[in-house]
Amino acid sequence: MMPYVDIKITREACPERLQGSRRGATAEQKAEPIAGVTDLLRRILGKNPATTVVAIDEVDTANWGVGGWPVPGYRAAQAAKETQ
Amino acid sequence: MMPYVDIKITREACPERLQGSRRGATAEQKAEPIAGVTDLLRRILGKNPATTVVAIDEVDTANWGVGGWPVPGYRAAQAAKETQ
Amino acid sequence: MMPYVDIKITREACPERLQGSRRGATAEQKAEPIAGVTDLLRRILGKNPATTVVAIDEVDTANWGVGGWPVPGYRAAQAAKETQ
Amino acid sequence: MMPYVDIKITREACPERLQGSRRGATAEQKAEPIAGVTDLLRRILGKNPATTVVAIDEVDTANWGVGGWPVPGYRAAQAAKETQ
Amino acid sequence: MMPYVDIKITREACPERLQGSRRGATAEQKAEPIAGVTDLLRRILGKNPATTVVAIDEVDTANWGVGGWPVPGYRAAQAAKETQ
Amino acid sequence: MMPYVDIKITREACPERLQGSRRGATAEQKAEPIAGVTDLLRRILGKNPATTVVAIDEVDTANWGVGGWPVPGYRAAQAAKETQ
Repeated sequence: MMPYVDIKITREACPERLQGSRRGATAEQKAEPIAGVTDLLRRILGKNPATTVVAIDEVDTANWGVGGWPVPGYRAAQAAKETQ
Repeated sequence: MMPYVDIKITREACPERLQGSRRGATAEQKAEPIAGVTDLLRRILGKNPATTVVAIDEVDTANWGVGGWPVPGYRAAQAAKETQ
Repeated sequence: MMPYVDIKITREACPERLQGSRRGATAEQKAEPIAGVTDLLRRILGKNPATTVVAIDEVDTANWGVGGWPVPGYRAAQAAKETQ
Repeated sequence: MMPYVDIKITREACPERLQGSRRGATAEQKAEPIAGVTDLLRRILGKNPATTVVAIDEVDTANWGVGGWPVPGYRAAQAAKETQ
Repeated sequence: MMPYVDIKITREACPERLQGSRRGATAEQKAEPIAGVTDLLRRILGKNPATTVVAIDEVDTANWGVGGWPVPGYRAAQAAKETQ
Repeated sequence: MMPYVDIKITREACPERLQGSRRGATAEQKAEPIAGVTDLLRRILGKNPATTVVAIDEVDTANWGVGGWPVPGYRAAQAAKETQ
């Protein structure tokens, strides 16, 4: 009954496809996971697409921490390691 | 003990009452569900209003998907159906 | 469009009304906030009840912390203070 | 960076495929959306599968409300309508 | 395995330390709880810092309710009580 | 004002300290992050401990996916790689 899916991603240009705006995923890029996840729940779990809700929650990189660092600091540290 | 309520709504003018701003619910419109939900939990479940927390999370319509579509596309499709 | 409300409460007998089971709110007690919150969003924000989703998330008191203590320890400390 | 996806579904046998246990989706049925959503975010948004986290949150039908009713009551009402 | 921590705070200058910007916690202030919570989960629960994710979710005070009031109204009421 | 922290961890014995029960973190192990996170928010962001809420959400390993696999499958795959 009416699954609810919350997708949290960092707000930034999408690295692989490169067509993302500087301010986050484009509306088209957000339409795709909404369609994809809804279809997936229909096929795998038999959930009704008409009542499947998908929220995309874009989080600023400064507010997202990995390995004990906000994303910008984490990436700087990774880059520094790789250039050593 | 200290219930926590998270209300996720799309960020848009409230359709029925029409006094909403273009940028989302007004502060008054958000004050009402905060008061209402807090009172409801007091009456029904005996929760202490002083320590009830209510968060209102307004989500952009492009980030909210229904029926496999972001809300703007979903509404366009519904409108097209109705005018057929 | 299809608001989603998540209500987090501790899993325990409801203190005021006393008819709660030992294992949490009864099905009737959970039906009431579902009906109440759905009606509230309709009246205040004009949200369609047919597509309003309300989830009640009952959390064990050992997994819910207030004032730096899990709820059982918090209550013991409050009770100790009051009997001083 | 490390997307986090939370999928909330009702805890019940999956209607279409019918092989679900009475107590919720089987481990196999839960493995599929985990694999599917992870792959989707890689293809669409270029997210690294190695650091994509997917949580499946199964909610009791008594704790999930639609149209102002917990799911069991909602279904009974729908069935009553259809048999009229 | 890959714990996920979500910290919801009001978006405002941090009261005690006073170096916060008007628009919320500074990047430095957000780096500290990310580092601190990650380290805490390592020490207490043996969770791997490399795969610990911490999200900081700053909520506008108008969208955060306590005691049945949005935060600005709550504070005004508290201040009025204290000056009586 | 009343920060709310949600800690999602897999429900399992804590690997490093080994005193965990088979069914998840012990009450003592859960009391520690509640105390620790509450103190952290007080020290770093000046948040009042009396109104800080911390929820610990233990998720079954079958419901937690990493790298496209539920945790049990992920671990089996990692172990297989290491013994090659």
